[in-house]
Amino acid sequence: MTSQDAHTPATAPATSSPSPTTENGKSVGWHKAYLPDPRGNHPEMRVPVRVVHLTNGESVTLYDTSGPYTDPAVETDVRRGLVPLRENWITARGDTEEYAGRPVRPEDDGVKHTTPRGGLRNLDAVFPGRSRRPLRGRPGFAVTQLAYARRGEITPEMEFVAVRENMAPEVVREEIAAGRAVLPANINHPESEPMIIGKRFLVKVNANIGNSAVTSSIEEEVEKMTWATRWGADTVMDLSTGRNIHTTREWVLRNSPVPIGTVPLYQALEKVDGKAEELTWEIYKDTVVEQAEQGVDYMTVHAGVRLAYVPLTANRKTGIVSRGGSIMAAWCLAHHKESFLYEHFEELCEILAAYDITYSLGDGLRPGSIADANDRAQFAELETLGELNRIAKRHDVQTMIEGPGHVPMHKIKENIDLQQEICEEAPFYTLGPLTTDIAPAYDHITSGIGAAMIGWWGTAMLCYVTPKEHLGLPNREDVKTGVITYKIAAHAADLAKGHPGAQDWDDALSDARFEFRWEDQFNLALDPDTAREFHDETLPAEPAKTAHFCSMCGPKFCSMKISRDISERFGGEGGGGADGAAGASDEEIEAGMLQKSKEFAAAGNRVYLPLAE
Amino acid sequence: MTSQDAHTPATAPATSSPSPTTENGKSVGWHKAYLPDPRGNHPEMRVPVRVVHLTNGESVTLYDTSGPYTDPAVETDVRRGLVPLRENWITARGDTEEYAGRPVRPEDDGVKHTTPRGGLRNLDAVFPGRSRRPLRGRPGFAVTQLAYARRGEITPEMEFVAVRENMAPEVVREEIAAGRAVLPANINHPESEPMIIGKRFLVKVNANIGNSAVTSSIEEEVEKMTWATRWGADTVMDLSTGRNIHTTREWVLRNSPVPIGTVPLYQALEKVDGKAEELTWEIYKDTVVEQAEQGVDYMTVHAGVRLAYVPLTANRKTGIVSRGGSIMAAWCLAHHKESFLYEHFEELCEILAAYDITYSLGDGLRPGSIADANDRAQFAELETLGELNRIAKRHDVQTMIEGPGHVPMHKIKENIDLQQEICEEAPFYTLGPLTTDIAPAYDHITSGIGAAMIGWWGTAMLCYVTPKEHLGLPNREDVKTGVITYKIAAHAADLAKGHPGAQDWDDALSDARFEFRWEDQFNLALDPDTAREFHDETLPAEPAKTAHFCSMCGPKFCSMKISRDISERFGGEGGGGADGAAGASDEEIEAGMLQKSKEFAAAGNRVYLPLAE
Repeated sequence: MTSQDAHTPATAPATSSPSPTTENGKSVGWHKAYLPDPRGNHPEMRVPVRVVHLTNGESVTLYDTSGPYTDPAVETDVRRGLVPLRENWITARGDTEEYAGRPVRPEDDGVKHTTPRGGLRNLDAVFPGRSRRPLRGRPGFAVTQLAYARRGEITPEMEFVAVRENMAPEVVREEIAAGRAVLPANINHPESEPMIIGKRFLVKVNANIGNSAVTSSIEEEVEKMTWATRWGADTVMDLSTGRNIHTTREWVLRNSPVPIGTVPLYQALEKVDGKAEELTWEIYKDTVVEQAEQGVDYMTVHAGVRLAYVPLTANRKTGIVSRGGSIMAAWCLAHHKESFLYEHFEELCEILAAYDITYSLGDGLRPGSIADANDRAQFAELETLGELNRIAKRHDVQTMIEGPGHVPMHKIKENIDLQQEICEEAPFYTLGPLTTDIAPAYDHITSGIGAAMIGWWGTAMLCYVTPKEHLGLPNREDVKTGVITYKIAAHAADLAKGHPGAQDWDDALSDARFEFRWEDQFNLALDPDTAREFHDETLPAEPAKTAHFCSMCGPKFCSMKISRDISERFGGEGGGGADGAAGASDEEIEAGMLQKSKEFAAAGNRVYLPLAE
Repeated sequence: MTSQDAHTPATAPATSSPSPTTENGKSVGWHKAYLPDPRGNHPEMRVPVRVVHLTNGESVTLYDTSGPYTDPAVETDVRRGLVPLRENWITARGDTEEYAGRPVRPEDDGVKHTTPRGGLRNLDAVFPGRSRRPLRGRPGFAVTQLAYARRGEITPEMEFVAVRENMAPEVVREEIAAGRAVLPANINHPESEPMIIGKRFLVKVNANIGNSAVTSSIEEEVEKMTWATRWGADTVMDLSTGRNIHTTREWVLRNSPVPIGTVPLYQALEKVDGKAEELTWEIYKDTVVEQAEQGVDYMTVHAGVRLAYVPLTANRKTGIVSRGGSIMAAWCLAHHKESFLYEHFEELCEILAAYDITYSLGDGLRPGSIADANDRAQFAELETLGELNRIAKRHDVQTMIEGPGHVPMHKIKENIDLQQEICEEAPFYTLGPLTTDIAPAYDHITSGIGAAMIGWWGTAMLCYVTPKEHLGLPNREDVKTGVITYKIAAHAADLAKGHPGAQDWDDALSDARFEFRWEDQFNLALDPDTAREFHDETLPAEPAKTAHFCSMCGPKFCSMKISRDISERFGGEGGGGADGAAGASDEEIEAGMLQKSKEFAAAGNRVYLPLAE
């Protein structure tokens, strides 16, 4: 076995820390490294990877979403934010301009009607060392990755994701140009490490965070974001609905190495004290600009919830379960008017285009129960999302489409097939889907099943579901469980899609397992900590980490040992092994085996020796 | 909504405890009840169900595997065992005979070479009040459910499962007679509540327990068994490999309300001190009889691992990962002889037939990694299992077929399709399959994904995988997590297969969710305890259990409340709701909606009112 590289090119030399990363002074068996731009166009480019060091001297290189936080050479400070690594690329294009920006107002943090001490002061004091003014596209310039791709330009961001995905930059450009992939990268979020969402690439995972009126603090949300990306979240959505929405988002954005998504409607509703009928296009637009200047990379917009579709949900078992969808439905009913998001969609496109914000066209009428899956309301909205997708593309706005929800297994494929057809292969971004309603507290699993399947069939990004779904707000442990479950679903989908190199990771882990390299198994695991902990529960002693047996069978009774013996006796020779045998006749196999059996008997007929007892 | 009945007939009156079951003096919102034989042929028949009482006065009836342990009217004593409810049915058939039985020997408990104090004494003292001698079929009589079914007889066992599955008894008989379903019911395990495994019926879940040389006690194993069935395990396999195998199995069988499966080869190997080459047909046969007399309901037999297939595994990434498969491979190599299980298969059939033990033809060459899935070794063995299935059927022995293992999603369907074709639709019983190798500590999830899919496509029983798979022995919490995960997979499969009545359970829970009946949500959940606990973490106060909002959005911002308003305004009227609207023209909808909008405005334009703040 030679050096294995899952998802990243074997040829690119890595600049890296000299030794494995340590935690609490203990080696963790892997270290953060950086791949350069293989074409040398951007000498400053450093594409992050996780290099796992195996005990047999080999190494495995894995995709890494964790940002500078896992690099011991980088000192991070949550109050200063991350280094704006994309800043020079953005300014070098010469198509953006700084401007004064919208003044931040107390109501941005939900303090309109009350005056808690220090509401405004907090906003100013968040990042004292930061003086960057917002950027926007200069008049007459299209500054989105979609516009560049369509013009044939390969941006540094595209080169970056090409390295990450082990793809040619031209493939990245083509997929973006065709609208089959998005590269969410607001020009006001220069701290983000470019990533791509599209069916030709690795399946991505989003983690939701966000405080609500009931609980949570700003620090907790930032911590949840870094925690989620540490375990593999590719993007994070900040769905805060309570106080301090603006400030929480500023903290999250300035410290986030991954694209941040939001639902601007939530904040807009806070500004009108939760009264949906008091929402206006102006308040909504102002909120979008506020968030655009902060650097939000993609926005969920429920512009597909049209007036005429609202009654289609009336006899559903669980009505409208999307918050955004229900707010817009309430507004439409209150005014008996077409949705202001639908009516002003072209204007919204112009705003998003000026910052290169990606649309995530929300499925406000997604089913909230098995009974409501694939109904008329859901698919009526999907038709409208297809219409809006075409409009967005005319404005050079990158666009993905959100999908359900609660869907039994046999109705899942229809969702992706219809979406791909109606939305011209725009990336699908689905919540689950949950394949049954009967398991509250385990909806990471009910939905992980559906997520893996729909990922296999072409969904580009999976929105995680935590064990607390339907029950409460996820804590740190729930966020981790949700991310790990969805990384499993995404990787299972990558395998099933036959993504180049995806299986290298499985193979490296299986090799380690077969060769009883326990430490390598742990370090290659999606969650090394828990794998190690579980092993230690049964066999805590340090020698057990190198023992040639495991706790399932005990030392006397080990199938792996028997197999290794068979492999040593028959493997690696023509006619003996699976590959060789495929071309050998039964007689040849029989003759070879008889010979082997004699050698086996001569060696004492022992297939394994008890190590203990 | 009327009384909901998931999986059991609405018409059959239930004999039941007068009030919901209590635990620690607290009502748990459900109680154990029993359905009678609807045809009145067996007045003593009591088919267990779980009745969930909803706060709106309705109830939901669910399949129940938990045995007498959840019936407060029954006093259970682990040292006396359960009531032998099938005893009269078995003796009434007049085709069995009592006999002295094989004497229990010290080596049955692995105490051949050492003499720990009380080894033999323990065997005698396990069930002091029990004097039942073993039964076997009388010479010339075929005593298997398959034989009865083929003769057109509907046994009480078949009537019992017909009630459980809400199917006609004749369908049960037909499926068994055709070999498409098995009803594992050793005549020496009269304590078991009959259940059926077949693709026409609910997808079943098996939980493995078993001590090993490294850890575990007898009491722990019995406790794991009752714990597993409490959460929904339909069968339990005792895979013990250490000391006290015989005694552990006796305890488990006498206390088990579900069929018990074993792998006799494990105990046989213990009897020859772990030296595979010293195994003989005689030792194996003696072990099978020993277990047959104890009442083992189904036995995994790795008779498909033939000498010629062993070299096919040599170049695999992870060789042979099945313990039984590796033992037989080692034996074949040591002697360069065809497997004694294969050679003596007809004789084995005669033994199993005499006790109505069901074959579970083991897949000893199943893949242990993604890389080895669907290879020549695996499918070569499957061909042999097809041959053995036909032989077993000639002997009236019920038979199911075991399947993999580690298989990426896109290769799963080929497994069930080939198995169904080669094995003439005999029930498939699969381990997972695990859809990726990269997540040790989360293999309940990697495999739950594959299990749900293969269940949808026709697998009849899913063998659970716990979080400790590959790492250690499952403890109590791991067993529960494994069972719950697999109940999710099985139910998701039942939904996807369109099993009659399966969706009633989801519908009842979704109704409760939509109507903010929190206690009903908890009581209907697969795991009420954890659902309640998660809710309490965020909103611990008792009033929150009846609050018309939840912690995800808080009181101001609730999509469910908006939907309920829409439903009240548009629902339940022709032309307004989803069903009605399907037949209405756009103009009719528009007109209806305008009217509704006016009413809405007249009512104050409020779609929800804050309950707090």
